[in-house]
Amino acid sequence: MPSYTAPVKDTQFILHEVLKVTASGIPGYADLEADFTGAVLEEAGKICSEVLAPLNAIGDREGCQIENGIVRTPTGFKAAFDQVREGGWTALDMPEEFGGQGLPHIMGTAVGEFFSAANQAFTMYQGLTHGAASAILAHGTQDQKETYLPKMTSCEWTGTMNLTEPHCGTDLGMMRTKAMPQGDGTYKISGQKIFISAGEHDMAGNIIHLVLAKIAGGPEGIKGVSLFIVPKFLVNADGSLGARNGVSCGKIEEKMGIHGNSTCVMNYDEATGFLLGEEHKGMRAMFTMMNEARLGVGMQGLAQADAAYQNALSYAKDRLQGRDVTGVKNPNGPADPLIVHPDIRRSLMDQKSFIEGARAFMLWGAGKIDRAQRNEDAAADGLISLLTPIIKGFLTDEGYEMTVKAQQVYGGHGYIEEWGMSQFTRDARIAMIYEGANGVQALDLVGRKLAQDGGKHVMAFFDLVKGFIKENEGDESLKKDFLDPLKAASKDLQAAGMFFMQNGMKNPNAALAGSYDFMHMFGHVCLGLMWAMMAKASSEALSSGTSDVTFHETKLATGRYYMARRLPATSLHLTRINSGGDTVMALDAANF
Amino acid sequence: MPSYTAPVKDTQFILHEVLKVTASGIPGYADLEADFTGAVLEEAGKICSEVLAPLNAIGDREGCQIENGIVRTPTGFKAAFDQVREGGWTALDMPEEFGGQGLPHIMGTAVGEFFSAANQAFTMYQGLTHGAASAILAHGTQDQKETYLPKMTSCEWTGTMNLTEPHCGTDLGMMRTKAMPQGDGTYKISGQKIFISAGEHDMAGNIIHLVLAKIAGGPEGIKGVSLFIVPKFLVNADGSLGARNGVSCGKIEEKMGIHGNSTCVMNYDEATGFLLGEEHKGMRAMFTMMNEARLGVGMQGLAQADAAYQNALSYAKDRLQGRDVTGVKNPNGPADPLIVHPDIRRSLMDQKSFIEGARAFMLWGAGKIDRAQRNEDAAADGLISLLTPIIKGFLTDEGYEMTVKAQQVYGGHGYIEEWGMSQFTRDARIAMIYEGANGVQALDLVGRKLAQDGGKHVMAFFDLVKGFIKENEGDESLKKDFLDPLKAASKDLQAAGMFFMQNGMKNPNAALAGSYDFMHMFGHVCLGLMWAMMAKASSEALSSGTSDVTFHETKLATGRYYMARRLPATSLHLTRINSGGDTVMALDAANF
Repeated sequence: MPSYTAPVKDTQFILHEVLKVTASGIPGYADLEADFTGAVLEEAGKICSEVLAPLNAIGDREGCQIENGIVRTPTGFKAAFDQVREGGWTALDMPEEFGGQGLPHIMGTAVGEFFSAANQAFTMYQGLTHGAASAILAHGTQDQKETYLPKMTSCEWTGTMNLTEPHCGTDLGMMRTKAMPQGDGTYKISGQKIFISAGEHDMAGNIIHLVLAKIAGGPEGIKGVSLFIVPKFLVNADGSLGARNGVSCGKIEEKMGIHGNSTCVMNYDEATGFLLGEEHKGMRAMFTMMNEARLGVGMQGLAQADAAYQNALSYAKDRLQGRDVTGVKNPNGPADPLIVHPDIRRSLMDQKSFIEGARAFMLWGAGKIDRAQRNEDAAADGLISLLTPIIKGFLTDEGYEMTVKAQQVYGGHGYIEEWGMSQFTRDARIAMIYEGANGVQALDLVGRKLAQDGGKHVMAFFDLVKGFIKENEGDESLKKDFLDPLKAASKDLQAAGMFFMQNGMKNPNAALAGSYDFMHMFGHVCLGLMWAMMAKASSEALSSGTSDVTFHETKLATGRYYMARRLPATSLHLTRINSGGDTVMALDAANF
Repeated sequence: MPSYTAPVKDTQFILHEVLKVTASGIPGYADLEADFTGAVLEEAGKICSEVLAPLNAIGDREGCQIENGIVRTPTGFKAAFDQVREGGWTALDMPEEFGGQGLPHIMGTAVGEFFSAANQAFTMYQGLTHGAASAILAHGTQDQKETYLPKMTSCEWTGTMNLTEPHCGTDLGMMRTKAMPQGDGTYKISGQKIFISAGEHDMAGNIIHLVLAKIAGGPEGIKGVSLFIVPKFLVNADGSLGARNGVSCGKIEEKMGIHGNSTCVMNYDEATGFLLGEEHKGMRAMFTMMNEARLGVGMQGLAQADAAYQNALSYAKDRLQGRDVTGVKNPNGPADPLIVHPDIRRSLMDQKSFIEGARAFMLWGAGKIDRAQRNEDAAADGLISLLTPIIKGFLTDEGYEMTVKAQQVYGGHGYIEEWGMSQFTRDARIAMIYEGANGVQALDLVGRKLAQDGGKHVMAFFDLVKGFIKENEGDESLKKDFLDPLKAASKDLQAAGMFFMQNGMKNPNAALAGSYDFMHMFGHVCLGLMWAMMAKASSEALSSGTSDVTFHETKLATGRYYMARRLPATSLHLTRINSGGDTVMALDAANF
């Protein structure tokens, strides 16, 4: 059975030695002293290792069951959810006004990774609640906030997001769910939504559905979509639960993974709904939730990769098979451990260098969100908006690939369910799909985000990379192993952007045919930047006589691997992009 | 529910227009007229579409069940197996002497792809039987051949291969299963084997296990391993079934996929075994089977990719979502089909160009095997021996990736089991693992095959590529789109080989750290060569006024995509290889 240990030390390194959070000038960050964050992370790690991780395989095996519309979660989920609630883990970065602890988003992200890694299916129940609460916080009336947020902060009530219908996912303009105004400010919602994660379950007293629907008589297409709050139980004026609303779960889906999370078909039959935000501005309100969800999903890619890697590493150290070609390493045993073999090393280094880079990227990105919100910094907001599809698309693609690599380390034992490695792969697979399939992320990046505000944000990113290189190129070892490769990769990325600028206007397909490659090369450059930043921090620690020489030397060696073996992928992506759209679009659809 | 249509036309194109089989001078090939092969392939395609493919999802859902040591296969499997047997499909390329049809291996390969694509779990029962029969054919006594081969040819009896034990898979020298000589030429076999595909089931009258074991008192390690025939029921002198042998299935494994195939723990308790081949030469005998199995597994990669692709393609044509950015394509519908979107095209072209290239590679390789066997051609034998790990490793890695891409085309519908796309991914996953995990294939390629016979075979491969380029570079369009990229990729591959030669002797890790990349770049060059050969055939057909202009123009366009977008991966692989082993091996195992 797999186990999970939260990477507290690595997270602390990123927060304090790389990002230097307390000195960053973001309101609330001054309180994030290393002792404090360390204590929070240790506690979080404990509940993850001891409570959530042991339920992961159980959730996979048992799945959720539906009987007469009632959904039962796997054995132990409810008790664990109570424990998570009681520990205050669901309220970490929610506003104090509604019962939260008011910590910055970066702390929610740091802890969120651990929870996702320990048990993705379980953590989704609280993750979706957080997203729904954020949408109410951003767009709700004071009354709506007071009605829903305290209970959602504590996860006494959970939340959902309802977008997809059987005939439309990405193209929400086609949606059929209707909202009929009742003249009293409420609406009657009718229609069917599918793939609703945590749509129905037995772990919360109420479920607050956020539902996209079209108000009768409104504009056609996406411009006629509004967002509604549709609680499972209506809430009385005194906050107590009232009548059951007209919403029910018709079916739960059999899925490849995340069996512990109930993926529901939700039927709305004249359910009472309350408008959230403005009429016909539903997409804007939904995107508050969606952007948060996309970052959370990117984090799932990292989290599953780490959970899988930790187990693959321990298997590689334990399993005796074959001999080191350069000389026996375990003379008293019948064979050497797998980890002596170069190809196993390659796989483990791929995983390790991705995971640590991605962790830095997530936390650095969370810092931008805090800066955007707490400092009302438009540049930070623009940058994280640009990077959101990369965090989602790149980290989930790579994260999935890493779970496949981790599984591979086990040989045949990776394929049987007994060892639990298959679950990481099956669970990680969904992250490439939900909250906008990764192809849609690439389209968002190239078709929308790149040119946003006149291309200001992508220029800011390049300036940031350039600035970092310039500032540090006096350090010879940093320059050769980190800055030079980063510069080359960044040049590839700029060349790709240039290709899009020169060709995209006259032939959009020439740019869009390269969108997926662009998303990946951008992701690599981001991780390259993170590795350069981490290398700098570790170099500084070593030259200032740190007591933890091994940690920092390992960090530098891991970074060198990324720069030498992973980052050069930008060049292949550029070759593909430069080949244009013609070979991609050459065939008539009928001739495939 | 997914469907499957055998790609008869494409296979015919490869056999007759690319490989020109009837003119190839291989004994038996002259009979492979297009009418004949077309009729065989059509018939094979029919049983695959109508009988095997519909059982694929059932097999996945039901799996195999064990009760009191008796294993029940999924509903419909037994009846379908009877139908396959009666159609003579299991006997296609077996020798006529033992009831086979004596067709060349290339025909078995062509048909085998269809069977694997339609239902991998099902087809493994006959595939393993074929492999076991080949080992008996190559190493058995006349008496053993007469006893087992007729029934195995018809699959009245099925076969298995028993290598893995709980503590050893790759490193078979550690094996514990013992063989005690009984003085009468027989042995008593005792021990436990795991991951035995088709180890026990209800579809055949007898199961002929080929079991690796160590004869008591023999040499230590891999040099003391012998191969034994251990039938489930002993066979009387008159060919009738005798006593039940001391072999039983202790458990069947829960797996990620191929649920329709019973993966068994087999317990041998003083079971009567008959030596196959020589004492202590078991590995050699097993490798007859293993090499055949590796090629068959490579084919599974291609087959699952094609089955998944066919369904993804039809979904991409049917599913309406979004609009073509260059102008509405389906003005009467609410949206355009997915296939208008460039990123969906990219995914479909990745799949299509891999599948058609891989199919040519498989059939071309099968031709080499026929040439090696039927013409006793040592050069062909050396070449296919070199390419076997590439066919296994590269085609299964890429094949798996393609099933993931096909699944992705479905968005959320790809993740739920209802649509069947998850099964292709889960089934394809095993092919990267069994018959030697792909890392072991890479090790075999770089550590053994590359330098075999003084590097003669790899030089022959380069000569072949060079010769093809030289012969055809007068054709300008072929030169630019196909030969130049092939030349560049082949140069990358040679440079990598050079790096290994210069560094591998003094530091084996420098070479082995690049083995996986080398396997992939070699695979790309092979597919590049195939695409150049196919482009030549299609160019010739077009200039000689073929009636099927669309087929050949599509073929050329698909090839151009591969050359422009897939083949340049060789350059990234070379960069990684040239970075050496230092970054890969830098960490102390304890510091990961």
